[in-house]
Amino acid sequence: MGDRTTIVVASGEMDRLYSTLIIANGSLAMGMDVSLYFTFWGLERLKKGGLERGRLSRMHLAGLGKGLMRLRMKKARVASLERLMAEFRDLGGRIIACEMTMEIMGLSREDMRENLIDEYGAVGTYIRDARDSRITLLV
Amino acid sequence: MGDRTTIVVASGEMDRLYSTLIIANGSLAMGMDVSLYFTFWGLERLKKGGLERGRLSRMHLAGLGKGLMRLRMKKARVASLERLMAEFRDLGGRIIACEMTMEIMGLSREDMRENLIDEYGAVGTYIRDARDSRITLLV
Amino acid sequence: MGDRTTIVVASGEMDRLYSTLIIANGSLAMGMDVSLYFTFWGLERLKKGGLERGRLSRMHLAGLGKGLMRLRMKKARVASLERLMAEFRDLGGRIIACEMTMEIMGLSREDMRENLIDEYGAVGTYIRDARDSRITLLV
Repeated sequence: MGDRTTIVVASGEMDRLYSTLIIANGSLAMGMDVSLYFTFWGLERLKKGGLERGRLSRMHLAGLGKGLMRLRMKKARVASLERLMAEFRDLGGRIIACEMTMEIMGLSREDMRENLIDEYGAVGTYIRDARDSRITLLV
Repeated sequence: MGDRTTIVVASGEMDRLYSTLIIANGSLAMGMDVSLYFTFWGLERLKKGGLERGRLSRMHLAGLGKGLMRLRMKKARVASLERLMAEFRDLGGRIIACEMTMEIMGLSREDMRENLIDEYGAVGTYIRDARDSRITLLV
Repeated sequence: MGDRTTIVVASGEMDRLYSTLIIANGSLAMGMDVSLYFTFWGLERLKKGGLERGRLSRMHLAGLGKGLMRLRMKKARVASLERLMAEFRDLGGRIIACEMTMEIMGLSREDMRENLIDEYGAVGTYIRDARDSRITLLV
């Protein structure tokens, strides 16, 4: 078994994406391989402008709205999603976009942030990575 | 360790169920064993008529409503949940229904689609499978 | 690889917490080690009074409200979250609180139920446990 983390990103919510990228980048920093498989609502975040449009889960974190939460995150020196994504790529993480979701949503590659995406794949791509992983999660 | 995928289906939303069955059937097609453990809202989908009543997560996929999404899925030749479930069974996947949830919901076996269910079990059944799995997910 | 279950508790909903603790306590009962890593909305449940304030996911279980669900759970002899948490601790489970979330939420240790928490940690703590686990989940 490889020393790998594989995460299915099926949720598009900002806080779920934070959890994903923090775990992903932490895994990379500790020498692991990482694949993120974006599907359904998660895939929307890979559309052009998609990362800025994230919203929080329905429950407010300690009653904080999105604006206040961003402020607190900045104060706590938590990097933005954009920055975490860039870091993820720099550290060698791989991003796979679900082709089926693209078809359902009527998206072509030009709609996507192609420079972030390593591969347009189907479930076989995911399983090949996941069955060889120590950490498998679905967000 | 076995070559197995084990998924806890705790969510009843249509898109989460799609992710589950696509991963499950993909795993089976690649020669893995698969167990799905339906609990809480997930279990509702195993009630008679439960698969038709699924709803989407609160965020709309690219602004699509449920009807339009179904249409797009059809056009993209994505099988229905009903068909994916039949395929899952045909390929040898196992379905376990959480007995505790049935008790909480006041459900008896006659309320369930018994032909889909291999076992009515408790958490021990899940853990036995999961600890012997390469891919463990909770949806 | 160790015989361990590691769960990221990123959701604060009552039913997700139930799933977590039932799987966690079942793992412990079967001789496994267990770490729960509380972050984002999950961390709110570790605040003083946090466990009582849980709410259900947006979909109602068989149309049950929270009150009726509690009644049914009592009748089905399902232990309360408080009791499951105590059991988890008694069986030797470990709880890690996400320091980053505490900073974002402006929480100090005095705001937390310190007697439940074994460690205040960052993502490295999680990955060390998770990469050595048979069962890894995110709730």
